[in-house]
Amino acid sequence: MLDILIKNGIIITMDDDRPVINGGCIGIEGGRIAFVSGENEPSGRAAAVRVINAAGRIVMPGLINTHAHTAMCVMRGYADDLPLNKWLFERIFPAEARLTEREVLAGVRLGIAEMIASGTTSFSDMYAHEPKTAEIVLECGMRANLSNGIIALGDEFDFEADRATRELRSLIADWHNAGNGRIRADASIHAEYTSPPWVWRRMHELAAENGLITQLHLSETKGETEDCALRRGGRSPVRAFYDEGILDTPVLAAHGVWLSDEDMELLREKGVSVSHCPVSNLKLGSGIANASKMLERGINVSLGTDGCASNNSHDLFEEIKLAALLAKGSTLDPTAVPAYTALKMATVNGARAQGRGNETGSLKAGFDADIIMLDTDKPHMRPLYDAVSTAVYSARGGDVALTMVQGRVLYENGEFKTLDIQRVLRETEEFAVPVVLSEKA
Amino acid sequence: MLDILIKNGIIITMDDDRPVINGGCIGIEGGRIAFVSGENEPSGRAAAVRVINAAGRIVMPGLINTHAHTAMCVMRGYADDLPLNKWLFERIFPAEARLTEREVLAGVRLGIAEMIASGTTSFSDMYAHEPKTAEIVLECGMRANLSNGIIALGDEFDFEADRATRELRSLIADWHNAGNGRIRADASIHAEYTSPPWVWRRMHELAAENGLITQLHLSETKGETEDCALRRGGRSPVRAFYDEGILDTPVLAAHGVWLSDEDMELLREKGVSVSHCPVSNLKLGSGIANASKMLERGINVSLGTDGCASNNSHDLFEEIKLAALLAKGSTLDPTAVPAYTALKMATVNGARAQGRGNETGSLKAGFDADIIMLDTDKPHMRPLYDAVSTAVYSARGGDVALTMVQGRVLYENGEFKTLDIQRVLRETEEFAVPVVLSEKA
Repeated sequence: MLDILIKNGIIITMDDDRPVINGGCIGIEGGRIAFVSGENEPSGRAAAVRVINAAGRIVMPGLINTHAHTAMCVMRGYADDLPLNKWLFERIFPAEARLTEREVLAGVRLGIAEMIASGTTSFSDMYAHEPKTAEIVLECGMRANLSNGIIALGDEFDFEADRATRELRSLIADWHNAGNGRIRADASIHAEYTSPPWVWRRMHELAAENGLITQLHLSETKGETEDCALRRGGRSPVRAFYDEGILDTPVLAAHGVWLSDEDMELLREKGVSVSHCPVSNLKLGSGIANASKMLERGINVSLGTDGCASNNSHDLFEEIKLAALLAKGSTLDPTAVPAYTALKMATVNGARAQGRGNETGSLKAGFDADIIMLDTDKPHMRPLYDAVSTAVYSARGGDVALTMVQGRVLYENGEFKTLDIQRVLRETEEFAVPVVLSEKA
Repeated sequence: MLDILIKNGIIITMDDDRPVINGGCIGIEGGRIAFVSGENEPSGRAAAVRVINAAGRIVMPGLINTHAHTAMCVMRGYADDLPLNKWLFERIFPAEARLTEREVLAGVRLGIAEMIASGTTSFSDMYAHEPKTAEIVLECGMRANLSNGIIALGDEFDFEADRATRELRSLIADWHNAGNGRIRADASIHAEYTSPPWVWRRMHELAAENGLITQLHLSETKGETEDCALRRGGRSPVRAFYDEGILDTPVLAAHGVWLSDEDMELLREKGVSVSHCPVSNLKLGSGIANASKMLERGINVSLGTDGCASNNSHDLFEEIKLAALLAKGSTLDPTAVPAYTALKMATVNGARAQGRGNETGSLKAGFDADIIMLDTDKPHMRPLYDAVSTAVYSARGGDVALTMVQGRVLYENGEFKTLDIQRVLRETEEFAVPVVLSEKA
C-alpha cells in the first residue's frame, strides 16, 4: 500500500528522458518515490493511505537553495542601499555581535518557514549556532547541509581555528546524516580573505577524513579578487585555494562573480559547484556572474539566495527567473539559459552541489519524495502552454500549494504542518527586532 | 459621513513631506482621499459607511504600469528563449494575426485581473481593439491610458495611417475622460522604425489638438539604434523624433535601453517620461537601461512590464525590486536607486508619465483613492523594520490583500469584486490557447 498517491498532475520531473508529463501520477512509499507514471491514475496498485488530486496543479521537485545564512532573516530590511563596507562593518557585524542564540534561532525558524512556504525543500547553510539550527531542521522536516563558516582573523587565528575544528567535529558526531539522511554536516572556509591557508588546510583535512563537502565564498567582489592578487603574488582566490589543495575534495563555492577564464577552467577541472546568487550580487553591487559561460564550460551551477540581509527574500523562484533573465540581458542573447536550464540549476544541479545527486532534485523512482505543487488557478499562471515556462517565468513562491520532504507534508494550502507560524512571527518581532534596532538608535 | 475609513495602517504615502506613517488612518469620500492622518483613528469625524482595520498591513498608493500590451497575456509562455526576430516574426506576429476580438478581449480581462490582484491600479496600454479594452477597463473599475500603436509599413502607409487616425479620433470621442476620468486616450507611434515621419507628425498633431500624451517605443535594442543611424544620417531615434517636433507634446517612451548622453539631454529638455521595463529588456536580450543615470539627469523614469509574451508577468513589485537591483549590479554601486526611489518610479513618476500627477500616485488629501494594502502576516514579510524596504525588497504581487480605485474596492482577500475570475480563466483557455497553439502544430 502506498503512503501517498498524487494523481492528475502536470508533472515536471526534471528527468531528461521525459522532463514533462502532462497528466500523470506519482506513488510514494516509505518517504521515497515508488513510481512516476504517464497515466492520470495508476492502472494497478492504486491503494494509498492518502490520495492527492493534483488536477490543475504543477507537480515538481522541491527547490534547493545552495547558499543561505538562514538566521540572517532577523535582519531582513534592516540595512539596505548602503556601501558594502558600511553595510557589513557598521550594520551587519555589530548587529550580529548582539544576537544571542535565542534571536538566531528565531531567525532560523522564520527563514525555514519562508523556504517551506515558497517551495524550497533543501538548503545549504553557513552561519553560527549550527547544532541548534540542526534541531530546528530536524523538527521542521526540512533537508539541509549545515556548516559553520570559519573566520579566523587578526590575533585570534589559533583560538578561532581550534573552535571551528571542535564545532565541526561535534556537528559531524551529533548530526551528520541525522533525520534519515536529511541533515548533513559540511566543512566550511568562510572565504579566502578571512583566514590563512593553514586554517583552510585544517578544514580541508577534516572534510577529506569525513567525506564532507566544503562550503566557501568565492570571488564575490572585484575588491576581493584585486586584494587577493596583491596579497598572493597575482593569484586569484580560485588559484590560491587550488594551490593549497582545497579543491581536491568536493567544494560548493558561493557567488563566482569575478572569475577569469583560467579560474573557470580550474573549477571545472576540480568539479567545484558554483552557487549563483543573482539577487544578492546585484543588491550589494557585486556584479553579475556569467552563469551561461560557466554552464557552457561544464561547471555545475546551482542557485542560492544568500542571507536575507542582502536579498531580502528566500524565494528561489525569484532566483530562477532572474538567473534566466540576467544571462540573456547581460550577454544580449535571448537564447542564453533557457527556462529548463534555469530550473535545473535550482533542482538537479543543486542536489549535485549538496552531494545529494542520487537522493533528490528530480522526480524518479527510488529518489526521496521531495515534491512541491504549484497552484495554476490564478490569472498570472494562465494560460498554461508549457509547464516549465510557467514555473520559471510566471510562478512565485506564493504559488506553492504544497511542500513535501521525504513524503512528509510540511505545508499545504497556506498551513504549516511542522511549525507554529504565529509563534515564529511573534518571536521574530519580540526577540530580534529590539536587539537589532538597538544599534540604530 | 465618510464612505470608507482605513485605520491602524502602516502608511507609505509617497508624499515626500512624510513618506511613512507608522500607524495612521485615511478617510475616503466620493472616490477621493479626504484626509491622511498620523493617528491610528481620527479624533473627530470618525463616522464611515465602512471601516477597514488595516492593523499589520502596509497601506500604499496603487502601482502604475506605464508600458503594457495587456491583450498579449493570451501569449504568456507561448514563445520563450528565442532570438528576437524569430520570436517576433515566427511566433508573435503570426499568432497575433490569428487572434480575433474575442481572444484579444479574453487576454485583456486576464491581464487586468492579474494587475488588480497584484496591486496595479493604473496602466498605459498600446495595442489593437482599444475601444473594447476601454469597455473592460470601465466595467472592472480600473484606470488606464489607452493607445493604438500605429504600425504603417510597406505598401500600406496611407491605409494604416488613415485607419489609425480614424481610430484615435473615435477613441477620443467615445472614451477620453470616461469613467470619471479613469480612462484616457493617448496618441501613439509604435516606434521610429515602423512608420515614416509624416505619419509621426499626423499623430503628433492629433495629440497637440487634443492635449494627449503620445506613447512610443524608443531605443529598445542596439539594432534599432544602429539601423536608425544608417537610415537617418547618423541620427538616433530620439534625435529623429526631436527633429520632427514629436517631443514637443508630452511623450511617454518605453524602454530607453540604448540612449546616448545627448539622447538623455534631449529627453530631459522636452520632459519626456521613460518607462523602464527591466524584466522585458533582460528577457528579450535587449540590455539594461541605465535608470540611475536617467534619474540623476532629471528624466522622469517610471516602470512598465511590457507585454506578457516577454516577461511573463504583470507583477509590478517584481519590476520595482529589479529596477533597484539592476541599477546597483550594473554600476557596482549598492547605493544606486535606493528603495524609496524605486517605489517612486512605480507610483509618483508613473502618475506623472500618464499625465495624472495631480490625481493619483501618492496618498494625500484631494487625490483619488487609488490604494492597495499588503498583508505582512507572512514569514517573508517579517520582521518589519522599514515599510518601504519591505514593500520594495520583500513584497510580491501575491501579498496584495486589497486593491481600490477611486474608493471602489476591486479586489479583497483573494476575491475579485468586478470580474468573474473563473469565467476569465476558462475563456482564456477555451478561446485563446487553441488559436495560438494552432500555429505551433
